Amino acid sequence: MSDAALSAAVAEDEAAFATPFVKSLVRLIRAQDSYGTWEGKPDAELLGDFIITKEQRREIPIIGDPDPDVLWRVNMFYAAVGLTIEERSGLMASPIMEMSHEGFGRVLFTSGRLVVLSKTLRDVHRFGFDTFWKLAAAGTKLAGDATATIEAYPEVARA
Amino acid sequence: MSDAALSAAVAEDEAAFATPFVKSLVRLIRAQDSYGTWEGKPDAELLGDFIITKEQRREIPIIGDPDPDVLWRVNMFYAAVGLTIEERSGLMASPIMEMSHEGFGRVLFTSGRLVVLSKTLRDVHRFGFDTFWKLAAAGTKLAGDATATIEAYPEVARA
Repeated sequence: MSDAALSAAVAEDEAAFATPFVKSLVRLIRAQDSYGTWEGKPDAELLGDFIITKEQRREIPIIGDPDPDVLWRVNMFYAAVGLTIEERSGLMASPIMEMSHEGFGRVLFTSGRLVVLSKTLRDVHRFGFDTFWKLAAAGTKLAGDATATIEAYPEVARA
Repeated sequence: MSDAALSAAVAEDEAAFATPFVKSLVRLIRAQDSYGTWEGKPDAELLGDFIITKEQRREIPIIGDPDPDVLWRVNMFYAAVGLTIEERSGLMASPIMEMSHEGFGRVLFTSGRLVVLSKTLRDVHRFGFDTFWKLAAAGTKLAGDATATIEAYPEVARA
């Protein structure tokens, strides 16, 4: 990587960590650190396992049950989406997730009587993002879509 | 049981089996009978395990994972609720269920953007009904509540 490309990547990472979504994700993960073992860990290291390169992704077999660590990261990711929806809309968005042993499934967020977000999950075994910026963009987009849905049906979301 | 009480119970059972909900439940279960092993079985026998008396219920331990047969009946019950909602409203209601290993959970039905039904599940280990009539009443009520919700927010259910 050239110096210019490297400093662009660093700037992109910094922007990612400044998004409300990634801030929520970091906060949620740090809240699970009951014994303070991650206290000295920088955020980028804490979220390190959310980043997998295309090459790494291809190497992960998609047979058998998804790894419990992957499922934990999927749960943290969607919990952070829920938190971001709540920050933006002021409404609690409760997630409900259904997953087959083969790593296919569905996640729904509801507020009141409204389905604010519905997403099919595929290849959960390979859950991960190329860069922190892509992680930030994915979570931010989901929370944005959900917030837009709440704004379209405010009375149903409060029913 | 006196003759009068017995014939009242028989009449109640007959009424239960005539409800659209129980008809859907029977249809769903028979659809799983790929090898025709239940062909000669009357409906009451087919649904026999849905009925548990108060005494039987007390004897079922609520520790450990719920029995797979119980989970199957819970799934069939809610699938029949979904089918009944569809018959009454003309809209598909997709269930999504989340269950802990301890037999607690939640089932949601959605149509379009609308949560048409949301129910907390408790003591799934002991899932069952005192009589066929109570089974029919429980399923019919859930489908009725969902249909009323669809009627209250028709445009959201079609969104």
